Amino acid sequence: MTRRRRIYEGKAKVLFEGPEPGTLVQYFKDDTSAFNNSKQGVITGKGVLNNRISEYLMSRLSEIGVPTHFVRRLNMREQLIREVEIIPIELVVRNVAAGDFAKRFGLAEGTALPRSIVEYYYKSDELGDPLVTEEHITAFGWAAPQDLDDMVALALRVNDYLSGLFLGIGLKLVDFTLEFGRLWENEDMRIVIADEISPDNCRLWDIKTNEKLDKDRFREDLGKVEEAYQEVARRLGILPEGGPGDVKPPKAVQ
Amino acid sequence: MTRRRRIYEGKAKVLFEGPEPGTLVQYFKDDTSAFNNSKQGVITGKGVLNNRISEYLMSRLSEIGVPTHFVRRLNMREQLIREVEIIPIELVVRNVAAGDFAKRFGLAEGTALPRSIVEYYYKSDELGDPLVTEEHITAFGWAAPQDLDDMVALALRVNDYLSGLFLGIGLKLVDFTLEFGRLWENEDMRIVIADEISPDNCRLWDIKTNEKLDKDRFREDLGKVEEAYQEVARRLGILPEGGPGDVKPPKAVQ
Ligand SMILES: Nc1ncnc2c1ncn2[C@@H]1O[C@H](COP(=O)(O)OP(=O)(O)O)[C@@H](O)[C@H]1O
Ligand SMILES: Nc1ncnc2c1ncn2[C@@H]1O[C@H](COP(=O)(O)OP(=O)(O)O)[C@@H](O)[C@H]1O
Ligand SMILES: [Mg+2]
Ligand SMILES: [Mg+2]
Repeated sequence: MTRRRRIYEGKAKVLFEGPEPGTLVQYFKDDTSAFNNSKQGVITGKGVLNNRISEYLMSRLSEIGVPTHFVRRLNMREQLIREVEIIPIELVVRNVAAGDFAKRFGLAEGTALPRSIVEYYYKSDELGDPLVTEEHITAFGWAAPQDLDDMVALALRVNDYLSGLFLGIGLKLVDFTLEFGRLWENEDMRIVIADEISPDNCRLWDIKTNEKLDKDRFREDLGKVEEAYQEVARRLGILPEGGPGDVKPPKAVQ
Repeated sequence: MTRRRRIYEGKAKVLFEGPEPGTLVQYFKDDTSAFNNSKQGVITGKGVLNNRISEYLMSRLSEIGVPTHFVRRLNMREQLIREVEIIPIELVVRNVAAGDFAKRFGLAEGTALPRSIVEYYYKSDELGDPLVTEEHITAFGWAAPQDLDDMVALALRVNDYLSGLFLGIGLKLVDFTLEFGRLWENEDMRIVIADEISPDNCRLWDIKTNEKLDKDRFREDLGKVEEAYQEVARRLGILPEGGPGDVKPPKAVQ
């Protein structure tokens, strides 16, 4: 068993020092939280599925020229990623009104939006990840206008591509959240997609039945949460075979 | 006593049909509300003072070329205004962190901002006037990008001018809210400042003591609310003389 230095433990993942400088190992936990951490739980097997799903989606994005932090999957729960300087802004792209947004604007969940809407949220557990504007972001120096332009351009490409990909397997991409980071290569800086892309941060509804196949099943106590994540992996053609060939987290050294 | 058709009764003002087409009479009440109408009260004499203060500030702005809806004051509580097509977005300019904003970003009230920050709120009592972004405003069609550009440009001029004017009388302009409307003249449309500019929608702190001389005295139960409005009028050199020469609202006809 590898012994690795633990860099950060978050709500859904653990970051360990990677094998080479500039890399990290991202370990996917089954832990789940919602509503600014006020609701917590475990979705058994979620980490294995999200590791697989995020690998798959980031690889496909990379093939169409959308840069991501993903390097390769290491095992059932871990993937190797490029270490980036995380931009403390979560970008949300919405195609259909749902969740918080539907409530904020008094829209019925499921209302198609007049066009895709991009929103920014400031990543801060203490402040409850508030909605912020370009004005706030640039005034407080969280990102430069050029960073935001790059992020939006990438996010819109991701939206187009994933909307198509999910439609192909009978799922509607209702909305999703992305994190971005700055990747330095010598003097050059590129903005790349970081974190994960999975049913933890995408809302996915069955095209025919509108059944929710994402973290909303946990948020709203709809049951069959793990089954939903499995169904997404199954439709993507990447459901891990061989049952519980799971791995334990590496022993952390301090 | 004039009998006028009542067009709209709001929380702080009543609008009546004006003497000529394209005009309205704006009647200033003493009624006061805060926190999305959950706190209500009366500040005796406020309507008289706000009518006077808004007249004064809109007139000065007009002199520097900032277009407003203001035509002339009619009496203690009423002014004649141009009827405009109100844009359902309140624009807030902030120079110093206070109120809701300070809480949202975990800043101590009174923290100077890195630069003036412009925010938009969607005018909707039912939705609690949510913070919105250009993205929301243009996607839902509440205003065009060009409208927003005009509004921001005007708001920044107002901020510069009023910051100077208030500094001259020992007051810090912490933040303020503006409403805008579309004024049609034949085929041409101009965006003008509407509603009111008064201690109801400006935060004004004494430069030396940081004492609040605005509606926050009501919001925070600081007492001496009417006195604060009077003090602002006094420093502006426009405290109405002659005591209670007040007028009753016109009898409305339906
Ligand atoms: N490539 C990367 N380099 C550095 N940090 C990353 C990278 N990808 C994701 N992260 C960060 O790792 C953490 C992922 O763990 P997670 O459990 O999602 O944390 P949180 O509880 O903060 O959401 C997040 O803080 C995320 O910003
Ligand atoms: N020039 C104008 N033309 C038309 N409507 C106006 C004009 N100026 C202000 N208004 C509207 O008049 C109302 C003023 O009343 P107020 O008591 O402030 O209402 P509210 O309770 O909606 O804030 C507001 O709805 C405002 O948008
Ligand atoms: Mg996270
Ligand atoms: Mg009002």
